[in-house]
Amino acid sequence: MKVGYIQASPIFGEKEKNFEQVKNLISDIKADLLVLPELFTTGYTFTSKKEAESFAEGLEGPTAYFLIELSKKINTTIVGGFVEKFKDEIFNSAMIVSRSEVLGVYRKLHLYNKEKLWFSPGNKPPKIYKIEDVNIGIMICFDWIFPETARSLALLGADIIAHPANLVLPYCQKAMVTRCLENRVYAITANRVGEEKRGDDHFKFTGKSQITSYNGGVLSSAPNNEIHVDFVDIDITKARDKNLNDYNNLFEDRHIEFYYNTDK
Amino acid sequence: MKVGYIQASPIFGEKEKNFEQVKNLISDIKADLLVLPELFTTGYTFTSKKEAESFAEGLEGPTAYFLIELSKKINTTIVGGFVEKFKDEIFNSAMIVSRSEVLGVYRKLHLYNKEKLWFSPGNKPPKIYKIEDVNIGIMICFDWIFPETARSLALLGADIIAHPANLVLPYCQKAMVTRCLENRVYAITANRVGEEKRGDDHFKFTGKSQITSYNGGVLSSAPNNEIHVDFVDIDITKARDKNLNDYNNLFEDRHIEFYYNTDK
Repeated sequence: MKVGYIQASPIFGEKEKNFEQVKNLISDIKADLLVLPELFTTGYTFTSKKEAESFAEGLEGPTAYFLIELSKKINTTIVGGFVEKFKDEIFNSAMIVSRSEVLGVYRKLHLYNKEKLWFSPGNKPPKIYKIEDVNIGIMICFDWIFPETARSLALLGADIIAHPANLVLPYCQKAMVTRCLENRVYAITANRVGEEKRGDDHFKFTGKSQITSYNGGVLSSAPNNEIHVDFVDIDITKARDKNLNDYNNLFEDRHIEFYYNTDK
Repeated sequence: MKVGYIQASPIFGEKEKNFEQVKNLISDIKADLLVLPELFTTGYTFTSKKEAESFAEGLEGPTAYFLIELSKKINTTIVGGFVEKFKDEIFNSAMIVSRSEVLGVYRKLHLYNKEKLWFSPGNKPPKIYKIEDVNIGIMICFDWIFPETARSLALLGADIIAHPANLVLPYCQKAMVTRCLENRVYAITANRVGEEKRGDDHFKFTGKSQITSYNGGVLSSAPNNEIHVDFVDIDITKARDKNLNDYNNLFEDRHIEFYYNTDK
């Protein structure tokens, strides 16, 4: 199957322009899965909860509409980040859309830094979306630093982790090699580029979007300072075989009876 | 405090010569914690369970005697790997010795490849050894690929993970950067060098022993093909502060209520 990402450069607060940017980058791509950055619709650097709220939408808002149209046009599954309003809360979420349907939404569990001032942390567990025969899990940006996120998705059966991001630090890409190795899954980290100077914050987003293989290989690595689109072919059967050699199976070899009980 | 490793080149089956090698490398080092490789007393490439058993010893055998003498001589705590016999089983273990005392033994939980033919997997959970004010956890080689090992040690309070190894693959050193970052602990990976050609196996051990900092920095990196000794100063108070910034604490931010339950 063919999977890829768009490393976009969203303009803060300009949803329509950000949709347009993505649309112009797609042209006639043929792919099975496309990952867009975290908050690709709005940009990242909110200065108040009220401001973040002003961009929030549900699963029938402009982002859903845009992604549905896009996924129909290029006949693919798309995962991309947006500000979600659900009941009285707003979340840093990623929507998964396939053909004419919103399949669901992942709400970022581990909020980074001031995100905690605007967003509520995800209120539901990681989940797998099965599309044809492919199991897709979603995590967002800072979720990478908690090994339990990717581990949970892999144990739930993920073949691929779609990983929208807005990275400002240099650690994630190497860590994704470890995440994929330890779980034998593929991952698509779709980061953004560009700068945002708002309020007290000045963020420079670091690009280097990455497609990481089940064996830790880096299948695609974007530049750090420009918009970039890439797709690669992957073989998901590789991600289903957790055997490292004749004696070791990464899941069966776990000694959960001796691990520190996370429920303590 | 000062911590370090000896990247030795054990000679298969020659305990006395392997002790001598280590002794000659120590000279007048002053350190608080010294880590030796996995199975530094015997070498690695056994060809039968019987052969491995023939080198097995308890906590009052020649390895304990040697490490006690050594730790008295240089006034330090030492962690090093050996073949342990306990009741009717043998384990790939690491002993922790401080001054005149064997404090305990860690039995490798995740056995690699044919080790499963000779050794029983560890039969007790990871544990912390408190020496003066420092909390030391132990894991052995392939344990690195299971994020639960380092995570368990960190949640139990480890400041430093002593990590004896006999690595033949190139992934561990980068993964240890992730392990230390995600847990904000120090780690000392003491690998070995040299080759062993025995039975059907031919292993080339890959050196590159590494001391990794709580923030993912590499404080020491040994060459890949020669015996090497190194020590660095570390500040364990850094490993006790799990705050990344004003808003994020790596342990408090865990959303264990949504992680895949490892007891399932």
